[in-house]
Amino acid sequence: MSILIKEVLLNNKRKDIYIEDNSFTEISDNIKCKAEYKIDGKNKAILPSFFNCHTHAAMSLLKGYADDLPLQDWLSKVWPVEEKFKEKGVYLGTKLAILEMIKSGTTFFNDMYWHLDSAKKAIDEMKVRACFASVFIDGLPIPKLPKDSELIKFAYGPHAIYTVNKENLIKIKELAEKNNRPIHIHLSETKKEVDDCFKKHKKRPVEYLNSFNFLNKNVFAAHGVWFDDKEIEILAKTKTNVIYNPVSNAKLASGILNFQKLNNVNVLLGTDGSASNNNLNMFEEMKFAALLQKANNLNPTLLPANQIHNIATEQAAKTFNINAGKIKEGKLADFILVDLKNISLFPNHNLISNLVYSANPECIMHTVCNGKILMNNKIIEEEEEIKEQAKTFINTLF
Amino acid sequence: MSILIKEVLLNNKRKDIYIEDNSFTEISDNIKCKAEYKIDGKNKAILPSFFNCHTHAAMSLLKGYADDLPLQDWLSKVWPVEEKFKEKGVYLGTKLAILEMIKSGTTFFNDMYWHLDSAKKAIDEMKVRACFASVFIDGLPIPKLPKDSELIKFAYGPHAIYTVNKENLIKIKELAEKNNRPIHIHLSETKKEVDDCFKKHKKRPVEYLNSFNFLNKNVFAAHGVWFDDKEIEILAKTKTNVIYNPVSNAKLASGILNFQKLNNVNVLLGTDGSASNNNLNMFEEMKFAALLQKANNLNPTLLPANQIHNIATEQAAKTFNINAGKIKEGKLADFILVDLKNISLFPNHNLISNLVYSANPECIMHTVCNGKILMNNKIIEEEEEIKEQAKTFINTLF
Repeated sequence: MSILIKEVLLNNKRKDIYIEDNSFTEISDNIKCKAEYKIDGKNKAILPSFFNCHTHAAMSLLKGYADDLPLQDWLSKVWPVEEKFKEKGVYLGTKLAILEMIKSGTTFFNDMYWHLDSAKKAIDEMKVRACFASVFIDGLPIPKLPKDSELIKFAYGPHAIYTVNKENLIKIKELAEKNNRPIHIHLSETKKEVDDCFKKHKKRPVEYLNSFNFLNKNVFAAHGVWFDDKEIEILAKTKTNVIYNPVSNAKLASGILNFQKLNNVNVLLGTDGSASNNNLNMFEEMKFAALLQKANNLNPTLLPANQIHNIATEQAAKTFNINAGKIKEGKLADFILVDLKNISLFPNHNLISNLVYSANPECIMHTVCNGKILMNNKIIEEEEEIKEQAKTFINTLF
Repeated sequence: MSILIKEVLLNNKRKDIYIEDNSFTEISDNIKCKAEYKIDGKNKAILPSFFNCHTHAAMSLLKGYADDLPLQDWLSKVWPVEEKFKEKGVYLGTKLAILEMIKSGTTFFNDMYWHLDSAKKAIDEMKVRACFASVFIDGLPIPKLPKDSELIKFAYGPHAIYTVNKENLIKIKELAEKNNRPIHIHLSETKKEVDDCFKKHKKRPVEYLNSFNFLNKNVFAAHGVWFDDKEIEILAKTKTNVIYNPVSNAKLASGILNFQKLNNVNVLLGTDGSASNNNLNMFEEMKFAALLQKANNLNPTLLPANQIHNIATEQAAKTFNINAGKIKEGKLADFILVDLKNISLFPNHNLISNLVYSANPECIMHTVCNGKILMNNKIIEEEEEIKEQAKTFINTLF
């Protein structure tokens, strides 16, 4: 596929952009060549698409199903239905989630869920990038991971330190090292988790994991609300990645991660699943991420718009070793085109500020991943079918 | 104007709804009559439109102009430009803000700003409801307020206790009582305001105002981040209204209002101006409002979806003595129609939960105020003209 975008705003300048196959081939002032798709960039800006770094995509089937409840009530309401998902539910739920992601400008997600084959099928069909971690809890066999494909990496997903014992964590760590796989784990999400860990192991969660050398740059620890200073030092030293989930942590009242204290740690951004957010909207996540830091520390300069936008794009791409996250010749063509006439981006004193503090998915006109147009002028061909199938399946759950 | 909406979802049931002149005339299972406008309600739900209870509408011209700055730097960047607004800027900025409100489902706003006549012209032309408070600070004449019109109430707007002295506050209070006008004031927004007040008056802000009987049910106090228990008791006793601005208070790092403690006080919800939010999106404001309470108090049951939605609609309507905020025969026809097929409302396990925790303005198809269709199938006729004029004006500011 080849795409030519004429006169689009890139870093405050009008540019022509030519995409061949899956990459930005040329970015310059005036490109004259033929292309299969030609897009008028007038009144549009081009920006890297988002990287959503902690999700449970299939849970989109349960958006709004259980809210405003204590964690235990929430779990006891959600889990029995989730169990009924099986292969089909995971396939349909993951497609539904990716539909929402494409519409809101996300083309990579770092997921953790069951039924790898079904999720893989959904991701393949939707043509986005993902790192999919196959969940493991004690008592089940450790999943065998397939080979990575062009768009999908596979990871180990030990659920958490309270659902996976030390022996199994060590087994997974060794397998991950041997096969050079990422590990995706929930860590220090609630105060209860920390207290229980301390009671059982006489160590806080990060110290516990570090006591058997579990942590390294291939570990992605979601949540991290309750790290103390000593734990943060360990995370920095081991180059462990942390994923900040401000909306989910607020909605489930887990607490607020202290971004400032993590300044030597690689922190990424994620929405978590739709049952605890309740959407996969990275605009909203960036805004919450920044504002919670400002409010919680009474300092309006913390986590400014450029920084959180960079975390949600370039920094995440680098971390996952994907040559995208930036609009530049030679980079993979993962991007969005936004409508500068959309009221949420108007007036345009500062585009990145508008993206972070004002925008909503309505401003996105085109979403492109790996050089393929997934949403074209707001149209995603499969949309109605995906929703119909999801609806029919949801009716069988209750 | 008459409108007939067929088979629309209202409180989980399909209904036909007939609107004549400015009110809901009939809501029943099958209405057969002629109407000037007929709307197919299939795949749509009808909901009350939002009441945004603290705004500075004209500041929409400065969206994204100054972010991530300490308050003093923010003020010194924003004020000099704001001064150049004059009548024309206020007229165009207010229209731009109302455009955004209509697109995001708001049909009433409680504003405080300069140049009443220009704001009035903008509100009249856009056909929404408002309560407009004419700002007062020491050294200027106390504004003379015009008669209320069908859609607009006028209020006194003493800016704050640090910009208006006691003598003038008393004068305004007496005028407001005499003329039965609301008073809109900023109160207890920052810790500095409280500390300065205590230094100067040996009282906290609410105690200070109460010492000369300023507070009553016609007073609308915006922000209220720093009230202590004694102040909250006074607010409850005097029936003073408080407006919670979670996004602005977080963005400027003023702090987080404690909703739970205000449970005997009438608390409404507002976005503040677009220079400190940076949008007028009440979906987002409801979500922030609820989530900040949960996160800040580590309790996921606080401020549930139904309650914050009620605050943003029915409770606000009641407070401002407007017979709207609910879809019911005899009520004023102020409402939105949302697209249930929009991904943010899908699946529909719980519509109010979806509205609060997942929705964004893209889901709104029609916005109606006082029986007049302001947005019809996403189209607002004046939109391009308003944005063009605003753009031309903004270029003259810099």
